[in-house]
Amino acid sequence: MINAGIIGATGYAGQQLVWILNNHPNVNVQFYSSHNYAGDFLNEIYINYYGFIEDKCINMDEAENQLKYIDVLFIALPNGKTFDITKKSLNLGVKVIDLGADFRLNSKEVYEEWYKIKHDLPSLLEEAVYGLTELNREKIKKCNLLANPGCYPTATILALAPLLKNKLIDTKSIIIDAKSGVSGAGRSANVTSLFTECNESIKAYGLPTHRHTPEIEQELSKLALEDLKVSFTPHLVPMNRGILSSCYANLNTNINTEELLNLYKDFYKNEYFIKILNTLPETKWVKGSNLCHIGIKSDTRTNRVIVISAIDNLIKGAAGQAVQNMNIMFGLKETEGLEFISMAP
Amino acid sequence: MINAGIIGATGYAGQQLVWILNNHPNVNVQFYSSHNYAGDFLNEIYINYYGFIEDKCINMDEAENQLKYIDVLFIALPNGKTFDITKKSLNLGVKVIDLGADFRLNSKEVYEEWYKIKHDLPSLLEEAVYGLTELNREKIKKCNLLANPGCYPTATILALAPLLKNKLIDTKSIIIDAKSGVSGAGRSANVTSLFTECNESIKAYGLPTHRHTPEIEQELSKLALEDLKVSFTPHLVPMNRGILSSCYANLNTNINTEELLNLYKDFYKNEYFIKILNTLPETKWVKGSNLCHIGIKSDTRTNRVIVISAIDNLIKGAAGQAVQNMNIMFGLKETEGLEFISMAP
Amino acid sequence: MINAGIIGATGYAGQQLVWILNNHPNVNVQFYSSHNYAGDFLNEIYINYYGFIEDKCINMDEAENQLKYIDVLFIALPNGKTFDITKKSLNLGVKVIDLGADFRLNSKEVYEEWYKIKHDLPSLLEEAVYGLTELNREKIKKCNLLANPGCYPTATILALAPLLKNKLIDTKSIIIDAKSGVSGAGRSANVTSLFTECNESIKAYGLPTHRHTPEIEQELSKLALEDLKVSFTPHLVPMNRGILSSCYANLNTNINTEELLNLYKDFYKNEYFIKILNTLPETKWVKGSNLCHIGIKSDTRTNRVIVISAIDNLIKGAAGQAVQNMNIMFGLKETEGLEFISMAP
Amino acid sequence: MINAGIIGATGYAGQQLVWILNNHPNVNVQFYSSHNYAGDFLNEIYINYYGFIEDKCINMDEAENQLKYIDVLFIALPNGKTFDITKKSLNLGVKVIDLGADFRLNSKEVYEEWYKIKHDLPSLLEEAVYGLTELNREKIKKCNLLANPGCYPTATILALAPLLKNKLIDTKSIIIDAKSGVSGAGRSANVTSLFTECNESIKAYGLPTHRHTPEIEQELSKLALEDLKVSFTPHLVPMNRGILSSCYANLNTNINTEELLNLYKDFYKNEYFIKILNTLPETKWVKGSNLCHIGIKSDTRTNRVIVISAIDNLIKGAAGQAVQNMNIMFGLKETEGLEFISMAP
Repeated sequence: MINAGIIGATGYAGQQLVWILNNHPNVNVQFYSSHNYAGDFLNEIYINYYGFIEDKCINMDEAENQLKYIDVLFIALPNGKTFDITKKSLNLGVKVIDLGADFRLNSKEVYEEWYKIKHDLPSLLEEAVYGLTELNREKIKKCNLLANPGCYPTATILALAPLLKNKLIDTKSIIIDAKSGVSGAGRSANVTSLFTECNESIKAYGLPTHRHTPEIEQELSKLALEDLKVSFTPHLVPMNRGILSSCYANLNTNINTEELLNLYKDFYKNEYFIKILNTLPETKWVKGSNLCHIGIKSDTRTNRVIVISAIDNLIKGAAGQAVQNMNIMFGLKETEGLEFISMAP
Repeated sequence: MINAGIIGATGYAGQQLVWILNNHPNVNVQFYSSHNYAGDFLNEIYINYYGFIEDKCINMDEAENQLKYIDVLFIALPNGKTFDITKKSLNLGVKVIDLGADFRLNSKEVYEEWYKIKHDLPSLLEEAVYGLTELNREKIKKCNLLANPGCYPTATILALAPLLKNKLIDTKSIIIDAKSGVSGAGRSANVTSLFTECNESIKAYGLPTHRHTPEIEQELSKLALEDLKVSFTPHLVPMNRGILSSCYANLNTNINTEELLNLYKDFYKNEYFIKILNTLPETKWVKGSNLCHIGIKSDTRTNRVIVISAIDNLIKGAAGQAVQNMNIMFGLKETEGLEFISMAP
Repeated sequence: MINAGIIGATGYAGQQLVWILNNHPNVNVQFYSSHNYAGDFLNEIYINYYGFIEDKCINMDEAENQLKYIDVLFIALPNGKTFDITKKSLNLGVKVIDLGADFRLNSKEVYEEWYKIKHDLPSLLEEAVYGLTELNREKIKKCNLLANPGCYPTATILALAPLLKNKLIDTKSIIIDAKSGVSGAGRSANVTSLFTECNESIKAYGLPTHRHTPEIEQELSKLALEDLKVSFTPHLVPMNRGILSSCYANLNTNINTEELLNLYKDFYKNEYFIKILNTLPETKWVKGSNLCHIGIKSDTRTNRVIVISAIDNLIKGAAGQAVQNMNIMFGLKETEGLEFISMAP
Repeated sequence: MINAGIIGATGYAGQQLVWILNNHPNVNVQFYSSHNYAGDFLNEIYINYYGFIEDKCINMDEAENQLKYIDVLFIALPNGKTFDITKKSLNLGVKVIDLGADFRLNSKEVYEEWYKIKHDLPSLLEEAVYGLTELNREKIKKCNLLANPGCYPTATILALAPLLKNKLIDTKSIIIDAKSGVSGAGRSANVTSLFTECNESIKAYGLPTHRHTPEIEQELSKLALEDLKVSFTPHLVPMNRGILSSCYANLNTNINTEELLNLYKDFYKNEYFIKILNTLPETKWVKGSNLCHIGIKSDTRTNRVIVISAIDNLIKGAAGQAVQNMNIMFGLKETEGLEFISMAP
């Protein structure tokens, strides 16, 4: 049995971790830590757990005291808040899986430029492993500090990896138009996240400098074996969950849709969680699952390829992939505790 | 291993059965039958199953040919369409669980009056067991023909049972104001179910003669040991899933909220799926689960009690309760395959 | 030209006033006051006004300085915050239309009991006129302090008035099950009003002591010529706008649906904004208008009547009725500036 | 007074025309024609008109008989159904405004290739004027057959026109990622348009051969003075109304966001309905209005420009622009009957 702790258990990513870990046959959750709700019963905040989880949320100090009892710590905190607890955990031999951005970028300078936060643990940036599981499995096996990918980067990198690995596209031509449900904005009480402000509307935001841009560029550059830049535009959609990433690039070669589908199916042929569709994905079919659906079209009129990927931002884009990585880090079957699929409608 | 067949597998209740049975450790689904999609792959209609279920849907004739291979048949058909297949199944010793209304009412006359359909198998009305599991468990154990309750009746009867059993309310005073998500209207292509027609609006419908009324009255009358009538008003709410049933009645006696809560908690103390909340229920906390949440308020100003129950209309209100009943009919643990809880948000 | 000021112009009721008054041919808005956005351009907060309204929001002090230039002050503030500005305005001969609850209840004691706020101006409670226009038109004509009704009371009182005036129902039997869109909760940044918390769910709240209860009882009692109590249960529905009030009562007499419809049509025959439907109302058909749709069913089985009314909570339930009252107070045509209807879908 | 007829008055575009024309001071609607609802009262289908419009819908034959009484015919029919009535109207000297695609494309061959419909009136393709009002005002003044633009083309062409006119972008690099509310799919009873199928999901559709592509290319080519091709990807968003068009192109020159904003503001400086925002547009701010909001960002990192435009698909994208064009065709003030703005929230 793996003993796990969760820091930030009452945010949307954190509570999704609670959900998954409670169904995981090999995990015991030792504590739920919450800044806003320390001292409250978890099942008073998330009433779906009423009758199932009887624990109270604890604060950060109490969590630190319990580090010695756990094997792995999941951190779901705002960016820049993880340094201290990460250091303490690693020093105690506790593996750390950070769902935030503090260890995703290899470069301290890039982190500080895009996040406007001083990085207190730059020495760990080299050690941290970027946990896009399907592309980084070997490194994940032996890592102690896992930087769990962002939701947009997960969907986008999975969509573009086969094209870049096979050098099929002009690396200067990549445009990513992504759409997210509102849970991506977190559970903070902001006017812009009110029902009445989000409902019946769509908008782009954060462009052209959304913080997921350097993360996407860093990982795509590794796949392309060259430095590349992308245009990345996120949009907010009136739905709870889901990310759809529509990726455009100029083709280097003549390749039709069928050939692309075959190439993608082959590229991901051993991947349980990646499904290459013959149609176009919709977020509803992956909502509530750790799956990534991908559809591809070659447009011979414009000589472009359009790849569209769909994930659940809180699962494959956060808590699900975190557990997928934990499974690998602890030598478990990769799909353990994650074999649930979407419920329609 | 129980071999099961599903008739009407591509409607909303049917596909929910697919979801649950595919996660059930003791069930093998022998066939999926669909009127509209016979010959199509199930995973082309419900793409959440892409990569998981490779079967094609079959038609009713093919389903009949396979009755001999199965132990239990789940029927999710429009009312009045079940008589023939039910008879054939029972004759072959196949247990039948009907998710429709054809065997719920004890009286042929009441059925024909409210449903405007001739009942072809009145002889079976006595044999059929009304499958509100928590209240009828003993009869369910040995039944061959199970009439699975309607969604509104499930929520409402569970809400009112403790009051009636304890004779705490005036049986002439019961008013039920219920609210349902749109999946309750099924997957038929009707203008009134279009996104643009349902979204951003709420309405009452069907009153005062909604077909669930005699079902509710029949079962509440059994609990009260007297014939009673209720006012029942359903409403359509712009959400996919969920029923909230707000039940009002005049109290016969002075009893405060705390006493009522204790009485309810005691009444349902052995029930895994019924949770008595200290607060008021919201459908989101039961969405995607087989749970029923109940909240209660005694209003001393008006001497009334208000009981509010929440279920997922497709699970506890349909497919989940059907599987709960199947578990009992086949001697399995009642919660087998049903121990999943709601995912927030 | 009537010069008007708006206090609380950036809340949902206040900005609806802005919308209506800007289309009103006889009104000039002198100032927009906002606690949170003083100093900001109104069209930066409500971008629908970009290119149409160039004013900045001002603070309360500045608003007070401008009282001398206006004929009428609309106040859309939290309860308990209106006393000072109301007094100053009346002293200057400025008519006041308060969209909050501070002057709705005739009794200081009842106000303080239900609102838990000390009432600073009890002397004005007698002078204030309750502005349910259709029922109180004569008094409104000459009033200086108008208490604009709450959204739930507006829908509910209009639904029940013909029954009570005609003594058709048992006054002890009234049950009101009401449903509101999320804009009723205002534009405050509360976790419970987040998109992700409200979407895909319905809940009851505030029962059995919601603050609109004494307001409903006070006005219904006047219509019934006797003190009555009601059960009132509000629900939150995932939509921006709209209130549906489902009202139940025991009939004193045999009267069928058609007779009730005729009675209602006659009762409201001169009312532009009240429409008696032959079907059941849906909030979408009144959304964005000052209309109230009412449907009625007599249930002979239970000897009850069910009346269902629908309004737009921000218009007939707030800003629209406020302007309707202003029109009367200033001798204008009652429908002036309010003759717009709902846009579908 | 202009006498107008509406063919297809009960579809979503048609009923929006009803709404606008009923508020238009210079228009009398002579008849409402509807294929599905001929013989029914319009206010039984669109209950928002209950008490306001007392007409019955008529069928096509009856509409033809009334052509002699009208000055202008608005047609909101499925593509390929307009030829006969258009010919008859023009022969009678009735001006025609077609909201469909039958006269938008200049080339019969392109029409037949993309729409898979034989064009019966190719001789009129030259005469028909493409009614993107802001760009084609002079031709509209004297035209008898107006082809009202598609919703996606309206938003997209308005977004890109200033760039192309000023030769600021590489014409081979244009990518359009557009998002629409569900009313764009019309009011037909299709499973894919059900609430439960659209809600809580986003998907792309129709790519890479959506029928609005040649319309966009035709008009952008005219602006660029060269033949160009675009990638156009529409998406379906769970909201009733609104189109957001996110347009990407490579810049030919160094130009920053502020310079672009100035250029756009100058380009559209005389346009009442086009608003250049300093922020990014959201569809909610134009919902229910004839406005187009445009936001622009220059991304110096990638040397790309991103232009995002927002319209209401049923108004500026259909019925509103049709009335705007009618105003011009009949010498009225262009904004007559269209000066309403969005209502929040």
